[in-house]
Amino acid sequence: MDLLEVLHLDELSHGLANLSMFPYFDMAHYIVSIMALREQPGVLQLSRVSPLACWFSSMLFCFGGAVLSAIMLAEPVVAPLSNSTSVLLASITWYLVFYCPVDLVYCCASLLPLRLVLTGMKEVTRTWKVLGGVIQAHSKYNDSLLVMIAIGWAKGAGGGLISNFEQLVRGVWKPETNELLKMSYPTKITLIGAVLFALQQTHYLPLKKHHLMLIYTVFTVVNKARMMLTGSSVSPFAAIESTIYKTLFSGHSSYAALTDEVEKTCMDKGAVNGTPSTKKSNEKGAGKHTPVSPVKGQSGSPKAKGESENAETKHSKKKN
Amino acid sequence: MDLLEVLHLDELSHGLANLSMFPYFDMAHYIVSIMALREQPGVLQLSRVSPLACWFSSMLFCFGGAVLSAIMLAEPVVAPLSNSTSVLLASITWYLVFYCPVDLVYCCASLLPLRLVLTGMKEVTRTWKVLGGVIQAHSKYNDSLLVMIAIGWAKGAGGGLISNFEQLVRGVWKPETNELLKMSYPTKITLIGAVLFALQQTHYLPLKKHHLMLIYTVFTVVNKARMMLTGSSVSPFAAIESTIYKTLFSGHSSYAALTDEVEKTCMDKGAVNGTPSTKKSNEKGAGKHTPVSPVKGQSGSPKAKGESENAETKHSKKKN
Amino acid sequence: MDLLEVLHLDELSHGLANLSMFPYFDMAHYIVSIMALREQPGVLQLSRVSPLACWFSSMLFCFGGAVLSAIMLAEPVVAPLSNSTSVLLASITWYLVFYCPVDLVYCCASLLPLRLVLTGMKEVTRTWKVLGGVIQAHSKYNDSLLVMIAIGWAKGAGGGLISNFEQLVRGVWKPETNELLKMSYPTKITLIGAVLFALQQTHYLPLKKHHLMLIYTVFTVVNKARMMLTGSSVSPFAAIESTIYKTLFSGHSSYAALTDEVEKTCMDKGAVNGTPSTKKSNEKGAGKHTPVSPVKGQSGSPKAKGESENAETKHSKKKN
Repeated sequence: MDLLEVLHLDELSHGLANLSMFPYFDMAHYIVSIMALREQPGVLQLSRVSPLACWFSSMLFCFGGAVLSAIMLAEPVVAPLSNSTSVLLASITWYLVFYCPVDLVYCCASLLPLRLVLTGMKEVTRTWKVLGGVIQAHSKYNDSLLVMIAIGWAKGAGGGLISNFEQLVRGVWKPETNELLKMSYPTKITLIGAVLFALQQTHYLPLKKHHLMLIYTVFTVVNKARMMLTGSSVSPFAAIESTIYKTLFSGHSSYAALTDEVEKTCMDKGAVNGTPSTKKSNEKGAGKHTPVSPVKGQSGSPKAKGESENAETKHSKKKN
Repeated sequence: MDLLEVLHLDELSHGLANLSMFPYFDMAHYIVSIMALREQPGVLQLSRVSPLACWFSSMLFCFGGAVLSAIMLAEPVVAPLSNSTSVLLASITWYLVFYCPVDLVYCCASLLPLRLVLTGMKEVTRTWKVLGGVIQAHSKYNDSLLVMIAIGWAKGAGGGLISNFEQLVRGVWKPETNELLKMSYPTKITLIGAVLFALQQTHYLPLKKHHLMLIYTVFTVVNKARMMLTGSSVSPFAAIESTIYKTLFSGHSSYAALTDEVEKTCMDKGAVNGTPSTKKSNEKGAGKHTPVSPVKGQSGSPKAKGESENAETKHSKKKN
Repeated sequence: MDLLEVLHLDELSHGLANLSMFPYFDMAHYIVSIMALREQPGVLQLSRVSPLACWFSSMLFCFGGAVLSAIMLAEPVVAPLSNSTSVLLASITWYLVFYCPVDLVYCCASLLPLRLVLTGMKEVTRTWKVLGGVIQAHSKYNDSLLVMIAIGWAKGAGGGLISNFEQLVRGVWKPETNELLKMSYPTKITLIGAVLFALQQTHYLPLKKHHLMLIYTVFTVVNKARMMLTGSSVSPFAAIESTIYKTLFSGHSSYAALTDEVEKTCMDKGAVNGTPSTKKSNEKGAGKHTPVSPVKGQSGSPKAKGESENAETKHSKKKN
């Protein structure tokens, strides 16, 4: 790509491509991931009540991608465990973050400048994970774009995609939320990365691999830093998304209009096929319903609640 | 089998056996499956809120059998994705069923005559799926009848068997319902098919394969058509089932009697080991209890509710 | 090991090591496991309502370890099914325990002396399962201690570790409880066994394999018998555990103190990020929360409930 050569970024991109993730970047990934876990509501108490569940949860945060892609490719799920060094490194990190005397490690790592650096380094590892997944899939299904994207995505955002089951380990169960229903920023950016690297791998994208790695890494790091500093969680793709949404998925009527009429029909049907009963039980165990109904369910409860909930999710997402 | 030869059905059965499912029958399978998904409560709203989750759910409806059997045989779960043509076909169907302008496709496909034809064609694919599963299992575990039945069943009725997790993708969680607890008609007929084809494969059943295919296919298609036209959901095996049940599983006392005494004992025990507490919380989060207790839980609520619920399940089952 | 030779236990340990589990010990394992299932609340009713789900649940109780380790090693999950003899044996046991006329089998097997013998034999099978898992893992990942422990543990305590999903088959869903959050005695003893055998396998433990088998088997059997006779569920490791806990995991402050402050901070944070809302809904669907909060949630409800619940879990644990 001429532009990059003009900017003398060629050797830089080569340098980046030859960068080793182990140990510093991996370490940063472990620290940031486990701190994100610790900041989930209830986890600090869990860490005192059941260290084992806490450790297992941390490992899923650190190696979720490897585990998920292993499941998808029918490779041993325990494989990540066989890499003793990484597991040891992650376990030490887990111990220091949760049980360090005077809570030293967590307090230090929480300082904005340090956390900024660590998060940046974690974002760098994302590029390597996604690329690794794409290449692995390419070696097995060398002409299936979809598989490459799926595995790349799983490797890069596995922790998020299996969050339901990671939470189950901690005794938490939130069926009404999952990354497919409402993608968090990391999941989105990873998906985009998987698509780009898959296209590059199949030569649909006229870019050298190390150039793409440089561009993608810089974008993710800069963007993540921006979000951390401004504290905003607005995705940079919001505009594109809404355009795609409007053009493709608004269907035969505008969203608002449609959902309204849908709701109406649902209520009418309800009288026949039991939606009211589910509605009723909605106030009780929201866990058993569509992501849409809970909102309706809460509409009765004070507005503040809904907001705080959003705040919480946003908050936890940001950390994720 | 003489009877078939007398009826000159031999060449017909050969013709059927050589029929290719791709593309027309597969297409029909995708359309009917995705329409069944769309008719689940809450899905239409979901399709507007999160197209990705909706797409993923549709794929599980279309390729659930392949996914489940892949998991059971430790083969890559992403394998179905690698067949680009099928995935593309299913995705286009998904798009047209959910987002077609003026909702044209769904409205047309819902017309009874057309739907009847499509459903019939879907039933035909069942035979091929079950047989495929049985043969695949036979090639790996060539003398294990159980494995053949399990894989054949999984291939043919996978969508139903993994419904709990398919629902989870959509943010719905109904632990108190699963196909093992209360088999729907498609699951039953598939199980029977799996048993028959497994017996044929191991030569316990003195029938030529193409004859069995003809008989089974005709039976499923005719029976499904009957059920659609009469709108009845009574299984043709009800009589046999109840006989088997009475002879084998009624145990040392009649069902009614037993459950009564069981309930009594439970309540007595309850004082000791917490059944009351679960009973109490039953009104709260029915999701966490035996398939039996919810019924008790609802007994307090207006009768209409219970009925409507049954209506709903029956309704969705019929479509399934 | 001299001591053992002095005690002339060498040939005894050799004899034990050459003992075959099939059929008597396996049979005992099936009987005790399925009786444990039958004693779960609601299962007897389930066995009348849905024999298939009951059978499947029983198989998971009997072969849970094989299934779990198969998943972890990416081996076919149906493999256990392919061993027709074992499945047949387990199925007959299942039938006799649940549906035997006059409930003869269950009543006899429940007699303390007989049950004591059967449970002892089941404990013996544990040694073989754990060792089998460790050896299997050793053959694949011959220098990874962690993998050996994981597989050995999974093989020996699989039924307990997958209990959440085994319950799901029965329509029960208790996300707030799992073996990682609160290990039952069998899970603990199996974990210890896995660690010991893994250390022996990698020669970190200077013991002959058959000696270790003898020691471990005797310990498990004796200890289980003691627990059954005294009816106490106090683990023999309680002291060691609490010491380890105090030294390693109490962190920078005593547990009580910390959780208190944590709770406070949570409540403060709550105002910001929605913990109150989760607290509120806590009384409704406890299933969606940390193992800690439910306790808080129940604190409002009559004391008796909490106790009975503990009683229940303890009770079911003991049987497990």
